[in-house]
Amino acid sequence: MIEIESIKEFGGYLKRYSHDSQACQCEMIFSVYLPPQAEHQSVPALYWLSGLTCTDDNVRVKAGAQRYAAEHGLALVMPDTSPRGHDVPDEKGRYDLGKGAGFYVNATRSPWDRHYHMYDYVTRELPALVEENLPLITDKKSISGHSMGGHGALICALKNPHAYKSVSAFSPICHPLQSAWGQGCFSAYLGDDQRSWEAYDAVALIEAGSTVPDMLVDQGTADEFLDEGQLLPETLVAACKKAGIPLQLRMQEGYDHSYHFIATFIGEHIAYHAQVLNQ
Amino acid sequence: MIEIESIKEFGGYLKRYSHDSQACQCEMIFSVYLPPQAEHQSVPALYWLSGLTCTDDNVRVKAGAQRYAAEHGLALVMPDTSPRGHDVPDEKGRYDLGKGAGFYVNATRSPWDRHYHMYDYVTRELPALVEENLPLITDKKSISGHSMGGHGALICALKNPHAYKSVSAFSPICHPLQSAWGQGCFSAYLGDDQRSWEAYDAVALIEAGSTVPDMLVDQGTADEFLDEGQLLPETLVAACKKAGIPLQLRMQEGYDHSYHFIATFIGEHIAYHAQVLNQ
Repeated sequence: MIEIESIKEFGGYLKRYSHDSQACQCEMIFSVYLPPQAEHQSVPALYWLSGLTCTDDNVRVKAGAQRYAAEHGLALVMPDTSPRGHDVPDEKGRYDLGKGAGFYVNATRSPWDRHYHMYDYVTRELPALVEENLPLITDKKSISGHSMGGHGALICALKNPHAYKSVSAFSPICHPLQSAWGQGCFSAYLGDDQRSWEAYDAVALIEAGSTVPDMLVDQGTADEFLDEGQLLPETLVAACKKAGIPLQLRMQEGYDHSYHFIATFIGEHIAYHAQVLNQ
Repeated sequence: MIEIESIKEFGGYLKRYSHDSQACQCEMIFSVYLPPQAEHQSVPALYWLSGLTCTDDNVRVKAGAQRYAAEHGLALVMPDTSPRGHDVPDEKGRYDLGKGAGFYVNATRSPWDRHYHMYDYVTRELPALVEENLPLITDKKSISGHSMGGHGALICALKNPHAYKSVSAFSPICHPLQSAWGQGCFSAYLGDDQRSWEAYDAVALIEAGSTVPDMLVDQGTADEFLDEGQLLPETLVAACKKAGIPLQLRMQEGYDHSYHFIATFIGEHIAYHAQVLNQ
């Protein structure tokens, strides 16, 4: 991996790297915030998965997370949301399929199956890469994300309960099988057999027996995509209740789907992860 | 003024307004963050003047200031950096003259003199407008800004010592008479007579007797524009020393010119202003 940017922030460094991804078969760019503590010791890492249309840039600029990461001595690992580049297929004119909309799955259907392996990328290739090259503690990582990335965080944790110490999400797409965004991407990337979709759906995974010790989810009540039926937190509540997973779903009165909502509560999410990671 | 956006953040509301500006003879857009305290009482306001190329959007998205404004019960008033619209003259292909580069002066030279009255706009028209329409305490305002906006904050305070309770700046253009950015804008907006420039130059104003009780300035040592000689903090130090103005200039080791630098220290600036405004 090649360092392409390093900016001092809150006593640590916000860095950007590029590398040739095996999983995605293209050059990928990601950002890492290393807190001041990382100068002298290895630190735990919180992975942040972003939502539709984002790159690694949105969260590092808009969420205000670095302040809290510095406070708690956590690194932030911020991947892109899809493969990129001229060779990578895209769906022109759609923000919710193709580039910027990898949906954290391994695509099996042409033309997406060559590059769109964001699930392998964020759960295997990227952690191995940053743990080899940066001062990160290998067995101390947690995961969070927003919207499509909230979905990503939930499924990554549910599918790898030993890899992540804790999981949280903002406005996650809880049950993509039942949301228009999820259906659009899953049918394109995975084909028509809906059983193959269940491997990437938080509610379906919980119903099939996947579990995590705890889950923190924030959802704004003024979120336009909540009304549209894209997010479906009630399905997550029902699945967690049935499975006995302690879910803290906090309906945040008057908040929308934007990074201003994330900025408001990211400090509490980072404290939640730090409590587990810094044990 | 017309409210065009309202987003809940940190318990308060981030709002955006448009209005027909008399000073700038065009429609202007600005943002205001009202902290939770403003729901029940009038609050003091901190004006933030942004730098070259910015609109009202950069600071509200990138600085992380709303968190601290909510904590201290201050409103943030965030104007644009120039007049806007099809009728407004611009210098195509230049980021440092015309739109996005109003430099907080009242232009006297054609074609700029009709619209480019950002000094009157930020010191007179905008305060009168927001104080009439929002829960703000009229005699409790302070001012800060970044780069061109740091210059703006310094001159607004120096020229109106009774209007602003306190002033601070990030990486300000301290002495535009001696910087390429300042010379480019002042010669275009004000003409060749350099005596007319002195009315908008912090160092020249201090040398001519303008004063403020105190001044907080943060400057990154890794700021590329510091090396380029655009910012010249040493000239401000010398002028303040001679005039007996207590200047806290903090050279921040390794920080650059970006909003990541601002985000790191904005909390301390807001605390600095709050101490005076909340007396």
